[in-house]
Amino acid sequence: MLKVGVIGCGYWGPNLIRNFSALDDAEVKICSDLELKRIEHMKKLYPSVAITQDYRDIIEDSDIDAVVIATPVSTHYKLAAEALEAGKHVFCEKPLTQNVEEGVKLVDIADKMKKTLMVGHTFVYTAAVNKIKKLIKDGELGDVYYISTSRVNLGLFQKDINVVWDLAPHDLSIMNYILDSRPLYVSATGHSYIQPEIQDVAFVTLTYPGSVLANLQVSWLNPNKIRKTTVVGSKKMLVYDDVASLEKIRIYDKGVDVIPHYDTFGEFQLSYRYGDISIPKLDDSEPLKIECQHFLDCIAGKKARSSGRHGLEVLLIMDAIDRSMKANGEKITIEYPKSLT
Amino acid sequence: MLKVGVIGCGYWGPNLIRNFSALDDAEVKICSDLELKRIEHMKKLYPSVAITQDYRDIIEDSDIDAVVIATPVSTHYKLAAEALEAGKHVFCEKPLTQNVEEGVKLVDIADKMKKTLMVGHTFVYTAAVNKIKKLIKDGELGDVYYISTSRVNLGLFQKDINVVWDLAPHDLSIMNYILDSRPLYVSATGHSYIQPEIQDVAFVTLTYPGSVLANLQVSWLNPNKIRKTTVVGSKKMLVYDDVASLEKIRIYDKGVDVIPHYDTFGEFQLSYRYGDISIPKLDDSEPLKIECQHFLDCIAGKKARSSGRHGLEVLLIMDAIDRSMKANGEKITIEYPKSLT
Amino acid sequence: MLKVGVIGCGYWGPNLIRNFSALDDAEVKICSDLELKRIEHMKKLYPSVAITQDYRDIIEDSDIDAVVIATPVSTHYKLAAEALEAGKHVFCEKPLTQNVEEGVKLVDIADKMKKTLMVGHTFVYTAAVNKIKKLIKDGELGDVYYISTSRVNLGLFQKDINVVWDLAPHDLSIMNYILDSRPLYVSATGHSYIQPEIQDVAFVTLTYPGSVLANLQVSWLNPNKIRKTTVVGSKKMLVYDDVASLEKIRIYDKGVDVIPHYDTFGEFQLSYRYGDISIPKLDDSEPLKIECQHFLDCIAGKKARSSGRHGLEVLLIMDAIDRSMKANGEKITIEYPKSLT
Amino acid sequence: MLKVGVIGCGYWGPNLIRNFSALDDAEVKICSDLELKRIEHMKKLYPSVAITQDYRDIIEDSDIDAVVIATPVSTHYKLAAEALEAGKHVFCEKPLTQNVEEGVKLVDIADKMKKTLMVGHTFVYTAAVNKIKKLIKDGELGDVYYISTSRVNLGLFQKDINVVWDLAPHDLSIMNYILDSRPLYVSATGHSYIQPEIQDVAFVTLTYPGSVLANLQVSWLNPNKIRKTTVVGSKKMLVYDDVASLEKIRIYDKGVDVIPHYDTFGEFQLSYRYGDISIPKLDDSEPLKIECQHFLDCIAGKKARSSGRHGLEVLLIMDAIDRSMKANGEKITIEYPKSLT
Repeated sequence: MLKVGVIGCGYWGPNLIRNFSALDDAEVKICSDLELKRIEHMKKLYPSVAITQDYRDIIEDSDIDAVVIATPVSTHYKLAAEALEAGKHVFCEKPLTQNVEEGVKLVDIADKMKKTLMVGHTFVYTAAVNKIKKLIKDGELGDVYYISTSRVNLGLFQKDINVVWDLAPHDLSIMNYILDSRPLYVSATGHSYIQPEIQDVAFVTLTYPGSVLANLQVSWLNPNKIRKTTVVGSKKMLVYDDVASLEKIRIYDKGVDVIPHYDTFGEFQLSYRYGDISIPKLDDSEPLKIECQHFLDCIAGKKARSSGRHGLEVLLIMDAIDRSMKANGEKITIEYPKSLT
Repeated sequence: MLKVGVIGCGYWGPNLIRNFSALDDAEVKICSDLELKRIEHMKKLYPSVAITQDYRDIIEDSDIDAVVIATPVSTHYKLAAEALEAGKHVFCEKPLTQNVEEGVKLVDIADKMKKTLMVGHTFVYTAAVNKIKKLIKDGELGDVYYISTSRVNLGLFQKDINVVWDLAPHDLSIMNYILDSRPLYVSATGHSYIQPEIQDVAFVTLTYPGSVLANLQVSWLNPNKIRKTTVVGSKKMLVYDDVASLEKIRIYDKGVDVIPHYDTFGEFQLSYRYGDISIPKLDDSEPLKIECQHFLDCIAGKKARSSGRHGLEVLLIMDAIDRSMKANGEKITIEYPKSLT
Repeated sequence: MLKVGVIGCGYWGPNLIRNFSALDDAEVKICSDLELKRIEHMKKLYPSVAITQDYRDIIEDSDIDAVVIATPVSTHYKLAAEALEAGKHVFCEKPLTQNVEEGVKLVDIADKMKKTLMVGHTFVYTAAVNKIKKLIKDGELGDVYYISTSRVNLGLFQKDINVVWDLAPHDLSIMNYILDSRPLYVSATGHSYIQPEIQDVAFVTLTYPGSVLANLQVSWLNPNKIRKTTVVGSKKMLVYDDVASLEKIRIYDKGVDVIPHYDTFGEFQLSYRYGDISIPKLDDSEPLKIECQHFLDCIAGKKARSSGRHGLEVLLIMDAIDRSMKANGEKITIEYPKSLT
Repeated sequence: MLKVGVIGCGYWGPNLIRNFSALDDAEVKICSDLELKRIEHMKKLYPSVAITQDYRDIIEDSDIDAVVIATPVSTHYKLAAEALEAGKHVFCEKPLTQNVEEGVKLVDIADKMKKTLMVGHTFVYTAAVNKIKKLIKDGELGDVYYISTSRVNLGLFQKDINVVWDLAPHDLSIMNYILDSRPLYVSATGHSYIQPEIQDVAFVTLTYPGSVLANLQVSWLNPNKIRKTTVVGSKKMLVYDDVASLEKIRIYDKGVDVIPHYDTFGEFQLSYRYGDISIPKLDDSEPLKIECQHFLDCIAGKKARSSGRHGLEVLLIMDAIDRSMKANGEKITIEYPKSLT
């Protein structure tokens, strides 16, 4: 039975505690949060989990095998580095760290300590994203032409990171995963409407090998939550709407080559699409559960689907996006260190 | 009774004939198309309209007051210029011409001949777009932060223009109209997947005065027709979905300042939005009918909502988009001639 | 070239004129309406069609081959009978007549005169309804268990017929057509909220042979137009939403035999369906056009898909619904005359 | 701190354990299930809760204040009666018992023992249902004309109760609650397609005082989960879709008195509704949490929103539905005992 300690009980912490608790091979022994009210609430929900306001009670506990980090991103490096150095496996929420430099160092420490470092890119554990990956791999969509994504909502307006670092890790990890690739260039435009210097909206265009384009839109300003990914291929198009509870993936077939003439406005208006649509049934398991189990499997030797290296790739792309935004959308080449090849 | 002649009976022609025929103050006397089958079909639908394969029968007919041009864009300049020189008022489908140079000349000819030159930017005549313009003007949305649009479908794959010139005129005319402004800069990325040198997908970011951003996506590769415009303001957000037959405009209010904690995946998944939504009833008149009537009113002296000058502004923006795409997304400043100020 | 006269230019008249005009083998020679304004509007739209306020100008015109009747239902019998007696073929809007007695007589007259009598049950000419009929016939849905329909809107509040006679003809003609059958019994409850004695809402349960149930809901009180038909079979379920412009038919497959346990509210809420969904592409031709062409084909000898006899069956069912409503929902056996067997 | 014991850990049990555990004033001490695997799973999720396969360990435990019953309905009476007789407060899942006779006796026992008997009509604790109740009470909808509901899904095919007893308790408890009334008559048609004698689909028409009609549709045969309630009033209509995660309640205003003429099929098709729609933001608290807290409040003296008496009313209506179905839809008057007045 693997003993887990969870640092941070805000947004993701309680869900991680719940999921690790439900796994057969793990037990959450202790959780911490700076805020007393949050850990008291955890105690109520999970009476058998110990609580503390000092994360060192977790890292210094020789009984703990793995540390789960669900704190603000600015603390990720320090906490994860300490935990790895103390000989713990580490599961860290995304983004891995607040900058590339810290990410590089963290991956090195994990290598040095021979411990599992996994980053919580939850979406690569969803049934939907894995369905998309399979459809692409099986050639169902034909050649992928381009991907377009929207990830917008009313933002938490974090003070330590901009909207790209808050929301784009999801899209970048999904796209790298489904394309089994990583982007070559980026061009991005953003703006800070609410807080000076912290972009709250950004439009990003990435180029993957093979002229596959990707257009991302991230925003903290929308009073409606949108999580949509459109993959346009030469044969079919796929729309993945993560907010849709029952029809997350829709596959649009192409049907006609010739667009007919229309004599009335009505006929014209009614002609919206061109082939059959199919909506596959997806397994509705909670992805976090699968991700938590995967972390246990990786500790036992499996290759991580969202390793520290994958997390570092995402940081490198976001760093390039930041630089392009500062340079008025200039096209930036993303350079990956040799250790990531 | 104003006598109208229509050149081109393909996509828009029949609708324009139908609408001009239904107006009290106009009469369609004749229509032309190079294809015999099309004009014979027109004869069947509108037995009282004369037909010809030679457009000169229309332009040289002294009985004709106004010429409507619904032909491929490469022919617009020649046809419109001849008609204006022959003393006719001209209604021309969008885009006005196939390049800026022709557009400048056409506006000059109309000025010289003191005739009405109107371009068929139909959307500025829709109930939806006028509702949006009013909501912005009345301050209902607060300060406009940014606009995001998608205009995608399986394309006609025109050989004379790219997807920007085919689809973006709609978005550009809508945005200029609702913002009562015009963009300063543009940065765009596009790609040609099907035909060499003719972009079939493009992602465009425009900057309007006051740091209002606009992100456009146009594509001929999507087997699902999308026409969506999202206007994000400081108070409310508006989504205009032109494909939705019954709920074209949705207005999302903001509701909360603090995002609550969630203890389970379910609660988290269910929390999608933050305030009330309202869906105003819109008048469902056919916009083309209003546009055709507006053309008659402009001939009678009214100021055109989509004049040749408006059409020329759109050409200038598209020209800048083309240049930015060629320069790998470089930021291009759009220069408007003094005559457009 | 078959010469057509249209009586009644209110709701359906103009659409019928437009469609018959567009057919190769027909020509609308004349139309009539009691209201001068309506026929003047027709003149504007179709300058080559003659107009009159006196329907006898149509029936007595020896040049006219077929008469199209699109007037209030109370006048159907008189007009259709006169036209048939005058040797014309008759296309009559639904319902065929305002009561069973008139319907029986009308079918007799058509038989006697050996003329085509067709009733405008438009839906049996739609791509959607024919797709459903084919899916049922091919066994795609398995055994049909039951059908459920909603046909509700803000009503025209007709004074001569109740909501059943206004709206149910559509559902009844669709169900008889797709099941290739007719109901044995009916039990119905209705109420008159607005006008005394004229039901504006009704709930109807029909039993077809083989224990196939059908539940109809018709109402004039809903400020949202709904036209939905659900066919539940042993293998699959089909939902036909005629208001949906782009996804009229959705086919739901069954997927699981065992419903799993759920540990959280979220998982429970998210589990809405059980198999794949498919949305077939339908031909988007205007059904009225097909129906008008079918009328011409029937005059030429083809068997009518919505003959006077079909129209009479619908009257017999509606008559039984009326009697059941009066008898507080009592189960009524519908008796079909031998001539309909 | 109130001590709670939970009998039954199948569908609702785990959710009830989770919610009672999270309340400040309650503690789940023990849970039971006949199936060992289920209680072992509970132990994993909630290590501090004791488990047993014998429900008597709960009822005979003098430390337990309240017993929560989430077992198959056929066992409700026996378990609830024993628990009440042992001096426990009882929260019982719906329906209260498997027949009217048992329900009457159970209410009597609770009265005699002066203990709280509450039935789990969860929906009366939802934000949506309470919003509807308030809108009706405030006159926002005008006079309520009729209610129409659909509650269909692929069924669990319970062997001890039919689809009415499985699904209709929700609709009946909701309608009685929002109308603050109870039905006078019922007429129902049902059929058993899968298991002999156990209806798996039913269509029910109820009449409430003031000629308010209610049409219910319940089915175990639909491979798509629908939970829809439409309330049609003289001023507005409300649609409550419980499956919609983000837009559960839509309010349709009426807008026009006169339906306009349409000249084309397109215009006609596009005219679907008549006034503004509004979608109010609802609190997204878990209703079960509110219900569990309400049970504690009732033990402390508050009047129950879903008392044993309310549960008994629902049984009386379902009993009448069963009798009407057996009598081919005959109209049955529902008789309420004086104790329920």
